[in-house]
Amino acid sequence: MTITNLSLIGGPVQPGTATLRPLGAHEVRVAGGFWGALVDLNSQVILAHCENWMERIGWIANFDRAAEGTVATNHSGIEFVDSEVYKLLEAMAWELGRGHQQDLADRYAALVARVAAAQDQDGYLHTSFGRPGQRDRYSDLEWGHELYCFGHLIQAAVARLRTGHDDKLVTVARRLVDHVYREFGPDGRPAVCGHPEIEPALVEFGRATGSAQAVELARLFVERRGTGTLATIEWGQEYFQDDMPVRDATVLRGHAVRALYLASGALDVGTEANDLGLIHAVEQQWANTVAKRTYITGGMGSHHQDEAFGADYELPSDRAYSETCAGIASVMLSWRLLLRTGDSKYADLMERTLLNNVLASPREDGRGFFYTNTLHQRTASTVPDDDSINVRALSTLRAPWFEVSCCPTNVARTLASVELYFATATQDAVQIHQFGDIDIRTTLDGAGDVALSVRTGYPHDGSIRVEILETPDREFGIDLRIPSWATDARMSLNGQNVPAGGALRRHFLAGDVVILELPMDPRITHPHPQIDAVRGTVAVERGPLVLCAEDVDLPAGYTVNDIALDAAHGLHTTGDGHTVARARLRHPSAADWPYTDRDETTLTGIVDLNLVPYHSWGNRGPATMRVWIPTAEPGSTMPAAPDGKEN
Amino acid sequence: MTITNLSLIGGPVQPGTATLRPLGAHEVRVAGGFWGALVDLNSQVILAHCENWMERIGWIANFDRAAEGTVATNHSGIEFVDSEVYKLLEAMAWELGRGHQQDLADRYAALVARVAAAQDQDGYLHTSFGRPGQRDRYSDLEWGHELYCFGHLIQAAVARLRTGHDDKLVTVARRLVDHVYREFGPDGRPAVCGHPEIEPALVEFGRATGSAQAVELARLFVERRGTGTLATIEWGQEYFQDDMPVRDATVLRGHAVRALYLASGALDVGTEANDLGLIHAVEQQWANTVAKRTYITGGMGSHHQDEAFGADYELPSDRAYSETCAGIASVMLSWRLLLRTGDSKYADLMERTLLNNVLASPREDGRGFFYTNTLHQRTASTVPDDDSINVRALSTLRAPWFEVSCCPTNVARTLASVELYFATATQDAVQIHQFGDIDIRTTLDGAGDVALSVRTGYPHDGSIRVEILETPDREFGIDLRIPSWATDARMSLNGQNVPAGGALRRHFLAGDVVILELPMDPRITHPHPQIDAVRGTVAVERGPLVLCAEDVDLPAGYTVNDIALDAAHGLHTTGDGHTVARARLRHPSAADWPYTDRDETTLTGIVDLNLVPYHSWGNRGPATMRVWIPTAEPGSTMPAAPDGKEN
Repeated sequence: MTITNLSLIGGPVQPGTATLRPLGAHEVRVAGGFWGALVDLNSQVILAHCENWMERIGWIANFDRAAEGTVATNHSGIEFVDSEVYKLLEAMAWELGRGHQQDLADRYAALVARVAAAQDQDGYLHTSFGRPGQRDRYSDLEWGHELYCFGHLIQAAVARLRTGHDDKLVTVARRLVDHVYREFGPDGRPAVCGHPEIEPALVEFGRATGSAQAVELARLFVERRGTGTLATIEWGQEYFQDDMPVRDATVLRGHAVRALYLASGALDVGTEANDLGLIHAVEQQWANTVAKRTYITGGMGSHHQDEAFGADYELPSDRAYSETCAGIASVMLSWRLLLRTGDSKYADLMERTLLNNVLASPREDGRGFFYTNTLHQRTASTVPDDDSINVRALSTLRAPWFEVSCCPTNVARTLASVELYFATATQDAVQIHQFGDIDIRTTLDGAGDVALSVRTGYPHDGSIRVEILETPDREFGIDLRIPSWATDARMSLNGQNVPAGGALRRHFLAGDVVILELPMDPRITHPHPQIDAVRGTVAVERGPLVLCAEDVDLPAGYTVNDIALDAAHGLHTTGDGHTVARARLRHPSAADWPYTDRDETTLTGIVDLNLVPYHSWGNRGPATMRVWIPTAEPGSTMPAAPDGKEN
Repeated sequence: MTITNLSLIGGPVQPGTATLRPLGAHEVRVAGGFWGALVDLNSQVILAHCENWMERIGWIANFDRAAEGTVATNHSGIEFVDSEVYKLLEAMAWELGRGHQQDLADRYAALVARVAAAQDQDGYLHTSFGRPGQRDRYSDLEWGHELYCFGHLIQAAVARLRTGHDDKLVTVARRLVDHVYREFGPDGRPAVCGHPEIEPALVEFGRATGSAQAVELARLFVERRGTGTLATIEWGQEYFQDDMPVRDATVLRGHAVRALYLASGALDVGTEANDLGLIHAVEQQWANTVAKRTYITGGMGSHHQDEAFGADYELPSDRAYSETCAGIASVMLSWRLLLRTGDSKYADLMERTLLNNVLASPREDGRGFFYTNTLHQRTASTVPDDDSINVRALSTLRAPWFEVSCCPTNVARTLASVELYFATATQDAVQIHQFGDIDIRTTLDGAGDVALSVRTGYPHDGSIRVEILETPDREFGIDLRIPSWATDARMSLNGQNVPAGGALRRHFLAGDVVILELPMDPRITHPHPQIDAVRGTVAVERGPLVLCAEDVDLPAGYTVNDIALDAAHGLHTTGDGHTVARARLRHPSAADWPYTDRDETTLTGIVDLNLVPYHSWGNRGPATMRVWIPTAEPGSTMPAAPDGKEN
């Protein structure tokens, strides 16, 4: 069934109430450029890559075997591989929302049919539980990931609904939600899943279908969190966010993806119920997490052991877990907060995270992915076999597939809908939050039809050109985000300077051109003094990009462990846009015992060091790499207070 | 049977050939002081603490149930808890070697009887494998720890033999070794245990009993290592040291305790076979590990995830795993290398590790233990319940017992034999490697009977007094180690200065007194510039002790995350021996985003900060703590090269 009621159509998140209205796939389109290339890579390579891998290793066949009754003795992969198939379906759904592609539509329909065939009579749908020879349904809520998998199926159905199709997958999701409501609703067992995910999915499904039960179920799951329904585990209950009620927490903690999915769902629940206590708790969690538990790349999660947030300011570069999926989950949370508040700080973090964490994952050719995103590679990583399944956190370059392969499909669904996070509308204005080549065509309730085209070389170039293609015969606003790092942004309308920042409100004419110029000089960035792991170092940023050093740009025999940045000498940009830093070299040397009575650093060489965008590192082959570079300046670390200012 | 052949009696390690001859319990005795208090604590509290816990939670009863045939359905604890009982037996055996204690002897005998009753007819002895309802013997060599457990039983038997008793436990061990030889010997399966430990145990058992089969078996296990007999695991085969042959490795890697036990066994095998290739490989592994993979406390192992060494210079303070057992294993390895070479660098590391890593584990009252030994506690840890079993690496203060409780029993067996690591002999000299109150009475083959008493306030005081109580009527040598940090040690004989360092060789008279004075002014220590985690910080050491800051010594409202050391102001020692540093305080403050365009550190206060021995931290209650303290000096981190020296 094709949906003709446009009010049901839209993006991944359509809050009942919001400051900003998200735009749907019918309102915003990618038109090439930096993001267009990524969208094409996703469409032409990554989707098929994920599908082919999951066919090859039987993760899709699990559904066939479930339908046939043979899966109990012949299940491929760990117990949450169903979710990867669902994330692929979500990615396909968004991709189809960009315009009809017969081959993709056929593949999507075939895959949905195979999934649907595995659904039990009562709506339950999971290939690892509940059949003779399998563990009982809901017998392992801590680790079984059943509701987590359901959440991803529901999100795929939401993508289908929001792009105009009430199809078989949506029917499967409806039956599944009804089942979960019976099992876990007000009259069901008072329990939660060890891995949050179904919470935001249920709210969105409720919004898309009008199901109050779905929203109520999400509310129950959020309210039950932190009441100790999950068994005690070695890493502590904060791993599951079951250590305290969501509304009592002041910072995100435990497993990073779990924490961020839960916060997203909690905000959705709070928004639907106008529960300001819950909403403000999530806002505070975001603020404290961003202030104290986030990498400069936007990456979240410090620990390999439990894929978890560390303590405040515990942000080691060389063991940064910074999982790609946590970055995606952070974008999901910030988008919700942006829609709610209109505060550009949320769009700032989305930009940082998309460009410097999420985009670090896919290889240039779309056939390999980083699961974790370290900020310091001490020894050159190995090249993984393109034909083998990798474990998630080994020190290899981007790998084709993983035993836990959440990241590739998460990248796929994100790139398949990425432009839906770029712009919003209000009654009489359009907000452009992320800069890329997009065409916007929408109707402002208080103004009328508007069409804009945005063209830019961003993130490598700072000039963003917005042309008004169609305008109502009355005033409306165009609000271009000024990133917080852009301290001297300039803006013009038809060549005349106008104030940058805030909405530019005019009675525009078709053909009007707004140009935003963001400063692209490379910048030295210092860490907070409590981030022990990077004391005495600086990072270099240029525009929205975090840069890094790779040893392929160093003289032979040196690694990034042998350099110091001569910050006093400044940075410069070459004609072709590369950032170059003056660096000092230190001869690699080891003492018998590495702790001595004097600081023995001797810097012996000088080199002009080419810095590259962090998200592109490793694409030239194995290398040592670092984002935070020690400084060669005296006193750069922790200067004493000026004389006379002591107290 | 009591052994009367004194050549069989001795310490934990009695190499067939060595530069230095270790002394046995009949030759060296603790006589009070710093170490005497610890030995008493172990004897009077820790042994009983371990025994009581293992009775209470059924780990000892596992043996009774095995004998009765009920253990398959009623086994307590994980699959290597047998080893904790064996380590307790080893501790009891060494303790009994210090002199007869009827109560302890009775408890030891009763425990041995219960263990012996569980041995199968063919010599196999493990409570978790091989019976109906249990997994098959040797069906899980990666994780089953069967041979690991055997190794600890064999080491307990060695302790019994070396203290003069060929008893029931030794008989059990003989039968067990025969069984292992049949199963894994030249005609058995070519396999190894996932956790090395049996290797050094077998060599020592061979040395103590003359069993060539035991030594040959150890050689086979060492040679098979690194040939890929263990299944592939997520963390990589280096976790098991199965990534390459022992003789090809240049540094320790993977799980730290595994790596150190294996290196100890490989050195033992190499020593017995005079296999210089193997010996030199272990020497190089030690050197590279100490140069690049060891904490200032001597602690080894950077990763929580796999309890493993990190890459070179990957030594984070706040996630230092630094397991107590790895420290003990490091002492075992260094002792072997010291005996082989006589090089004091090995005794230096033993001192550092014993005083600053191993001794950090037991609580002052002997009823709690650190499993891991972080060098930076960012937030005050919680106080564990003295009545509950803890998981191993949670952020609590010293805990009474753990689910994996290797550390308490390892501390117990180490303290029960600690003085056996203090001194050695050669043909005509006595070497004193560790300083504490001990009495030495031995016979030098080339000189005759010697008796010495050592008295000192070390490690808190630098004066070490050695009195010659009995001397042969001819020249012999006394060789007191000069620690590498003691740059201006002084020595006197009967009040007359003599050169410090090297053996003092004299025709001594009874009553002669040698005094070694080690400098005890606190010292500032800088880390190697490649240890990123502690760049821009210094540590303070005094004598052999690494000091630390705890927030109980700071003004209210500050944590150790808010301080910087004013190193230019110097350090001083108070009359009662406390070290005080001038520190600067920084008001705790958080920015919305912790990465800025300038270094915003503002130091606002001054405080005289009391520093305490790291090994004692946490004994005054929960606290934040740090060893590496940021410096407040300009340029302390990485000064630029002097002008004109650039190239």
